[in-house]
Amino acid sequence: MLGILGGGQLARMLALAAAPLGVKALVVDNAADACAGQVAPLVVADWTDYAALEQFAAQVDVVTFDFENVPAETAQRLAQKVAVFPAPRALAVAQDRLAEKTLFRECGLRTPEFMAVDTRADLDQALATVGAPAILKTRRLGYDGKGQFRLRALDDADAAWATLGSQAAAHGLILEAFVPFERELSVIAVRGRDGEFRTWPLTQNWHTDGVLSLSLAPAPDIDALQERATQLARTLAERLDYVGVFALELFVKDGELLGNEMAPRVHNSGHWTIEGALTSQFENHVRAVLGLPLGDTSARGLSAMFNWIGELPDAAPVLHAVDAHWHDYGKLPRAGRKVGHATVCAPDSLRMVERLGGIAHALNRDQQADPAVRELE
Amino acid sequence: MLGILGGGQLARMLALAAAPLGVKALVVDNAADACAGQVAPLVVADWTDYAALEQFAAQVDVVTFDFENVPAETAQRLAQKVAVFPAPRALAVAQDRLAEKTLFRECGLRTPEFMAVDTRADLDQALATVGAPAILKTRRLGYDGKGQFRLRALDDADAAWATLGSQAAAHGLILEAFVPFERELSVIAVRGRDGEFRTWPLTQNWHTDGVLSLSLAPAPDIDALQERATQLARTLAERLDYVGVFALELFVKDGELLGNEMAPRVHNSGHWTIEGALTSQFENHVRAVLGLPLGDTSARGLSAMFNWIGELPDAAPVLHAVDAHWHDYGKLPRAGRKVGHATVCAPDSLRMVERLGGIAHALNRDQQADPAVRELE
Repeated sequence: MLGILGGGQLARMLALAAAPLGVKALVVDNAADACAGQVAPLVVADWTDYAALEQFAAQVDVVTFDFENVPAETAQRLAQKVAVFPAPRALAVAQDRLAEKTLFRECGLRTPEFMAVDTRADLDQALATVGAPAILKTRRLGYDGKGQFRLRALDDADAAWATLGSQAAAHGLILEAFVPFERELSVIAVRGRDGEFRTWPLTQNWHTDGVLSLSLAPAPDIDALQERATQLARTLAERLDYVGVFALELFVKDGELLGNEMAPRVHNSGHWTIEGALTSQFENHVRAVLGLPLGDTSARGLSAMFNWIGELPDAAPVLHAVDAHWHDYGKLPRAGRKVGHATVCAPDSLRMVERLGGIAHALNRDQQADPAVRELE
Repeated sequence: MLGILGGGQLARMLALAAAPLGVKALVVDNAADACAGQVAPLVVADWTDYAALEQFAAQVDVVTFDFENVPAETAQRLAQKVAVFPAPRALAVAQDRLAEKTLFRECGLRTPEFMAVDTRADLDQALATVGAPAILKTRRLGYDGKGQFRLRALDDADAAWATLGSQAAAHGLILEAFVPFERELSVIAVRGRDGEFRTWPLTQNWHTDGVLSLSLAPAPDIDALQERATQLARTLAERLDYVGVFALELFVKDGELLGNEMAPRVHNSGHWTIEGALTSQFENHVRAVLGLPLGDTSARGLSAMFNWIGELPDAAPVLHAVDAHWHDYGKLPRAGRKVGHATVCAPDSLRMVERLGGIAHALNRDQQADPAVRELE
């Protein structure tokens, strides 16, 4: 039995990938309607309900995460009872933007300039060093653009502090230089309990309001970057003795890679691997944490993933298209919520442009696909 | 909500395919440990527990089958409450070998000689007409070689009657000529509620002791047969106003197709479609019965499926192989039971021979793969 902390769409897709391997999943979430509960048994408990969590731990062989912001203490307590992958130490680094960026640099991965900010005075000093534009972020508990404030000029400091200053004591803050990057890429990687390591081909990503909007894989023209990204991901994984899938988000500036952040779990930009790769990120994560051999991560062809945010569009254009795949997470619509995705596969760029453009047009969402279509043309 | 009668591996794979479409499954089985219950809620009830079945019907939008031998009366009663696909009438024809073979002939599909047998005297008369070797079968409730007796010569009649005669009154019997066929093929087909019709490429099958052992798709050298098989499947489906996936099992003799039987459900010889086709038989069955558009049924390349009977072999050689996919149904081992399968995909015959042979050899199961390897070489 595989225990999963967090019962969102990642847990749901992990459970669906675990089933053919003969692996049952047991999910914990504090919401009784968590969508993974539709495909696996669900324990409803808070992250600090240690009695319930101990009972959960007693039923499973391995614990893993759908949600990286599980409190470190919860992960550590579970780790005393049962194998937890990724290990709490690796999780702690990835939960803290400061520790994460420091590690990136130690591993030889450049990053945008950054400085820790604990007080209002720190913010002025950091701005003087990092310059503007810059982004003030919480060190912990941020995702999908939440807990961030963008400073266009030095005199935005008061407004930034007014928004995030209250979180400085509890979570810490970090000021990062805003880099006018050329492309955003991610490398999805997996490391087994025995150290076996694989990456999927680099994915190019486009965001809207801080949330992933579209992914394209393999990212076009990446020959020069794939090997470097793979080597960086491997170094990171080995430093952390990481087990499972993780995503390393990268910027490309002047043809060079900069580290943005690391997500210690299966990742939205890897959803295309369900149909687009020989083994999906979900299956390989399950294999990795259970100590099974990893599957081949080659791409079958080209894949593009539309993220559906807030509510699902009409499914018909996707269901009618050739080699297009619908994913409804079984959630109620809500502004900003990830409710589903669709992956479009094609054997070559020409047919990808045709299929991707066709679906986007039918859904009146040309804007969502345009950047990828331009990249392919 | 999709209701599924029967909670075996077919229901399990239907539920797994339904989830990404945002379709929840509810399964009924008389066994509390039915393996589909690991991935979907399970109602434990007998086929004649009409109170429980009515409650089940009230919860679902559509009812379909994992198991074609659900009593006709059960299907009819449910059909009064909720949409049932395939419809009880189509199910009834496919449940009865005599009605089925009669329909085949009406549709222009030749069959081996056959005659209905209700009494011991009928058997002698049928043998005189059909000749030996022949197979005496129950008209209803037979599958995977169960309820069959093979007569090598005319004087096996007493032995055949001793084995199956007691079932003549309840289920009826049929004597069929044993045809020394060259190949066994199946066509998996799907028809939507609006009449949209598709077939997957023909699959070649090899059986051991009446149970499917290995499938290979697309079957080699079928150009001359694919169109004919598709046309026959379409005629059959239209005659029955069939909705959903079905399998038409065919013999090839002297280069011509003979009808063997029809399975009114997703079929073991279509399991390769999960990874080997753009849309799987399971997803298209869900789409069909819910009235959604059907997905493309093209093959991605070549696929071969090993059936695991009785107990699972070591998973490692499959997990280590490129583009090979493990399916453990979550069942306890038991002689003759289908407990899992593995699908091996490859872009061409050369690599298929290599991968298929490699896995078979590592598992010490060369015999299981050899006929397909010979067909490919």
